[in-house]
Amino acid sequence: MSKFWSEALKRTEPYVPGEQPSQSDILKLNTNENPYPPSPHVVEAIQAAAQQQLQRYPPPSLDYLRETIAADQQLHKENVFVGNGSDEVLAFSFMAFFDPGRPILFPEVSYSFYPVYAQLFNIPYQEVPLTTDFRLPAEAFFQAEGGVIFPNPNAPTSVYLPLERIEAILQHNPDQVVIIDEAYIDFAEASAVPLINTYANLLIVQTMSKSRSLAGLRVGFALGQPELIEGLLRLKDSFNSYTVDRLAIAGAAAALEDRDYFAETTRQIIATREWFAGELKSRGFSVLPSQTNFVFVRHPAYEAGALYEQLKQRGIMVRHFNKPQIKDYLRITIGTQDNMKEVLAALDELG
Amino acid sequence: MSKFWSEALKRTEPYVPGEQPSQSDILKLNTNENPYPPSPHVVEAIQAAAQQQLQRYPPPSLDYLRETIAADQQLHKENVFVGNGSDEVLAFSFMAFFDPGRPILFPEVSYSFYPVYAQLFNIPYQEVPLTTDFRLPAEAFFQAEGGVIFPNPNAPTSVYLPLERIEAILQHNPDQVVIIDEAYIDFAEASAVPLINTYANLLIVQTMSKSRSLAGLRVGFALGQPELIEGLLRLKDSFNSYTVDRLAIAGAAAALEDRDYFAETTRQIIATREWFAGELKSRGFSVLPSQTNFVFVRHPAYEAGALYEQLKQRGIMVRHFNKPQIKDYLRITIGTQDNMKEVLAALDELG
Repeated sequence: MSKFWSEALKRTEPYVPGEQPSQSDILKLNTNENPYPPSPHVVEAIQAAAQQQLQRYPPPSLDYLRETIAADQQLHKENVFVGNGSDEVLAFSFMAFFDPGRPILFPEVSYSFYPVYAQLFNIPYQEVPLTTDFRLPAEAFFQAEGGVIFPNPNAPTSVYLPLERIEAILQHNPDQVVIIDEAYIDFAEASAVPLINTYANLLIVQTMSKSRSLAGLRVGFALGQPELIEGLLRLKDSFNSYTVDRLAIAGAAAALEDRDYFAETTRQIIATREWFAGELKSRGFSVLPSQTNFVFVRHPAYEAGALYEQLKQRGIMVRHFNKPQIKDYLRITIGTQDNMKEVLAALDELG
Repeated sequence: MSKFWSEALKRTEPYVPGEQPSQSDILKLNTNENPYPPSPHVVEAIQAAAQQQLQRYPPPSLDYLRETIAADQQLHKENVFVGNGSDEVLAFSFMAFFDPGRPILFPEVSYSFYPVYAQLFNIPYQEVPLTTDFRLPAEAFFQAEGGVIFPNPNAPTSVYLPLERIEAILQHNPDQVVIIDEAYIDFAEASAVPLINTYANLLIVQTMSKSRSLAGLRVGFALGQPELIEGLLRLKDSFNSYTVDRLAIAGAAAALEDRDYFAETTRQIIATREWFAGELKSRGFSVLPSQTNFVFVRHPAYEAGALYEQLKQRGIMVRHFNKPQIKDYLRITIGTQDNMKEVLAALDELG
């Protein structure tokens, strides 16, 4: 603490991202990154953009990238906002749609950045407990005073909420913004994007960091009716007019255009997830039904914190959350088939 | 306006950046970009980084880039915070060091983003009038209640405040953060950086967008004692853990390492500025004494708004601010010698 710090800074306990070790011999399964590099077209697009006018500001309205995303999602440019990773889009959304004095709702076990935003922007919040099998109780999100936010599939649990439950939440909150954080949706059965035209209160946030193999590039986006998107554009222009750089624009657009590469790498991750979950179950693990690129698992005989440490000693990084409801679980990112064989081999050695 | 918008969004009138026309035949002298491309080493570094692990998050602590900046400034890593352009660094600084209820001071004629931040974050402010010759009256910034922020050199006036005046402001505000926005300092006589070790309340913000030819890459930074830098790091980690992408890290570090290229392009811009200012004066313009990469000028016989339009019709974009105190002035970015000859030719045609 410093006498120079603002009240907002003093009251906020920052988010702690997963470790990014600099050693290259670590098997990194702790931050839900994609094990595959981006499409070769992405690399080419960036290399070309590096030679083009880097001394000029990026286009502040990001029309080209917004149009590319809109085409991919069968929407219009006016339905799309682009930001510096989905975390920035979420931060802007908290500022644009939630107010001090009107409590918002989010799940008790969820993305741990939500309470941080709420503290920073002084938004009161109530955390809704999950069911005992880690499902989202939709009814508990009916009639929120200030708004609703949750990931679907939820993180770190990996569990998916069917669209009819999401629709019920939207219908019960006609005057509040309901933000669905679809960071992992490309590994799940269906996005809520088709609901956008029906529900003016629906904002969907997605990211290029997971399914598009571009965590290093910082591109996330929001989808919604033009009224919400205009709010985000105005908020961005009141904070930082250019948050997505020229290289990120070029790389993100190229990633969206290579649909085959995206389809194939996503298919492979889902196949590996299903196989790996089966292997874990055969070793006595409970594995929550995952619709993400990670699994959330526990073993009746192992203490999760100890297992985390033992894997780390063997050069395998997974994530353990020291929170009462989930302290018995580990979150393991799905890597390549070979990566996951390495994890199983380490578990077999430990067992 | 929308019923879904927050109070913060409703009360804030966004900043309007200079136009970024997509036609390439425009002579763009309206956003103080560098006319020279970045160093060839920057392009190479980006092209190499594009092939390296873009599927991984950037290092959240940005140690490598912070160390490179520290070495360039003869400081330590703990004195350096890096963000997505100096606008993001300024936004974070408002949140980290200024409080609702404690009015801050900034110049009445200054960077027009400051009142936007103040509205967004609900920080009361008082605007200090400049002297009639557009100088910053240092005494008017003594004993600020909530803090002080001003550019040096000031924008859009181009006028520089000597360091002994800055020291007086720092000495009179021992309990408030004084932010000096040095976006244009590389075109001026001396930075306030050497004062950092003496004044715990001094935060200096700089950018790679102007003198380093990297407006398209989005890298800005703050320099100060570790207590202020730690505040900015905590703020960033409460907002968006990774705001500078892998390519921007590589490009910015390479730009800092090519000192010869930086020295030569900066020297050239200053020489062009001095020559261009002389040419303007010989045509009857008043030119404020510039220590930036732009000039702020008026002509007794021309109406500035009309001149802006006439230049635009000839494919030359400059900037006109429709604000009472400066409505008679145009801000003209310094391009290459050839660019500025084109401007003079257009003026001669009009005259």
